[in-house]
Amino acid sequence: MTRFALTVEYDGRPFMGWQHQDHGPSVQQAIEDALHAITGEDALVHAAGRTDAGVHALEMRAHCDVAKDIAPFRLMEALNARLRPNPVAILGCEVVPDDWHARFSCLARHYEYRIVQRRAPLTFEKGLAWRVANPLDADAMQEGAQHLVGRHDFTTFRSAHCQADSPLRTLDRLDVVRQGDRISVFASARSFLHHQVRSMVGCLSLVGQGKWRPDDMRTALKARDRAALGFNAPSDGLYFLRADYP
Amino acid sequence: MTRFALTVEYDGRPFMGWQHQDHGPSVQQAIEDALHAITGEDALVHAAGRTDAGVHALEMRAHCDVAKDIAPFRLMEALNARLRPNPVAILGCEVVPDDWHARFSCLARHYEYRIVQRRAPLTFEKGLAWRVANPLDADAMQEGAQHLVGRHDFTTFRSAHCQADSPLRTLDRLDVVRQGDRISVFASARSFLHHQVRSMVGCLSLVGQGKWRPDDMRTALKARDRAALGFNAPSDGLYFLRADYP
Repeated sequence: MTRFALTVEYDGRPFMGWQHQDHGPSVQQAIEDALHAITGEDALVHAAGRTDAGVHALEMRAHCDVAKDIAPFRLMEALNARLRPNPVAILGCEVVPDDWHARFSCLARHYEYRIVQRRAPLTFEKGLAWRVANPLDADAMQEGAQHLVGRHDFTTFRSAHCQADSPLRTLDRLDVVRQGDRISVFASARSFLHHQVRSMVGCLSLVGQGKWRPDDMRTALKARDRAALGFNAPSDGLYFLRADYP
Repeated sequence: MTRFALTVEYDGRPFMGWQHQDHGPSVQQAIEDALHAITGEDALVHAAGRTDAGVHALEMRAHCDVAKDIAPFRLMEALNARLRPNPVAILGCEVVPDDWHARFSCLARHYEYRIVQRRAPLTFEKGLAWRVANPLDADAMQEGAQHLVGRHDFTTFRSAHCQADSPLRTLDRLDVVRQGDRISVFASARSFLHHQVRSMVGCLSLVGQGKWRPDDMRTALKARDRAALGFNAPSDGLYFLRADYP
């Protein structure tokens, strides 16, 4: 068996998320089907993050074990050929040690949440960004975001379906960056709770609209109560950017 | 009657082009249908450029005459509401003099052609850029492009279906700009022949691949013969950027 690490880009719009689902297509299934067509093997593909329905990835990392003798470049090209017409692309493929695990070896995960501020509906980016019709104060959002950086109990920002053992997480970065009519929220941590990024961004959008003051972010965090959550931002704007490994 | 100038963004993928077509949806028809639903009038919508099937626009300019008493902002909002779910957005709407004509008053048209150089298929940008698997030499392309700038007979770079009276055009700008794995070709002129930008980009791609020398662009131009054309680039990467008026 050879273990391959994959770098995967995908447009999450047509998928029910990364993970296998009974009720619709998943990115994981698309890659496993392509792999089966190439190798005849039933390999599982494990990812650094199990993104939700409609969430995108620019450089998701994943791994799989293959018995067939195949070079990494050939495997990548064959996967890309078989993945059509799914909007999933294998950008990189390399042999890694047998104990390298896309999920468990991962030291940090980086997300970006994209907001477009404009009156008109989105065209090219429909489903690829969150359109907000009214102006957002990015400086206030950035100030509010800093209350969440550090090691905290993120119960307020955690989905009811979250399966993590503990609500404690260390948020290394939460930055709000404006470029013209576009606002990106960058979030980095070793790991995140289910819906954490979308929950944080939803609350920050209330700060941006002036409905919350920046330090209401701290109040919501301290409440450690899902009922204190202001708003869960839609999946459209969320991108898994990349994962770090030793 | 009040004449309104519209600024229109559209994703060209689902359309047979700007202009009415018997065999499929057009951007013009989508806007005229929305206008009819709002005003009950059968107004024609004229554009600065009649883009082909699959060609996109970031700021197309158009105009229409409306009898109904309606403020520009309200017209814009109503058009956007009625245009859903078409990937067409009205970004601007203003009252203009009765002799302002989106096509005939236009002093310059600006296009961008987007190329993405990578092995893997496109995901987010499928149909929105031309993917080229092998490396392109953007410096050589830029050198070749300069042979086309100026006033020339562009017969070589003109579609057999072009309806213009003359093949003479003045190309004001043709610049090849690389940013990482992305190459954009910017073209500006008072007006273009049918397929001119795609034909120029197709030949430049041959220069980028080393199949043509930069001065083969000049040879092709001087031939004034469609048979001297190297290649017509696909519609996917072409964007009408904006139009200039007095």
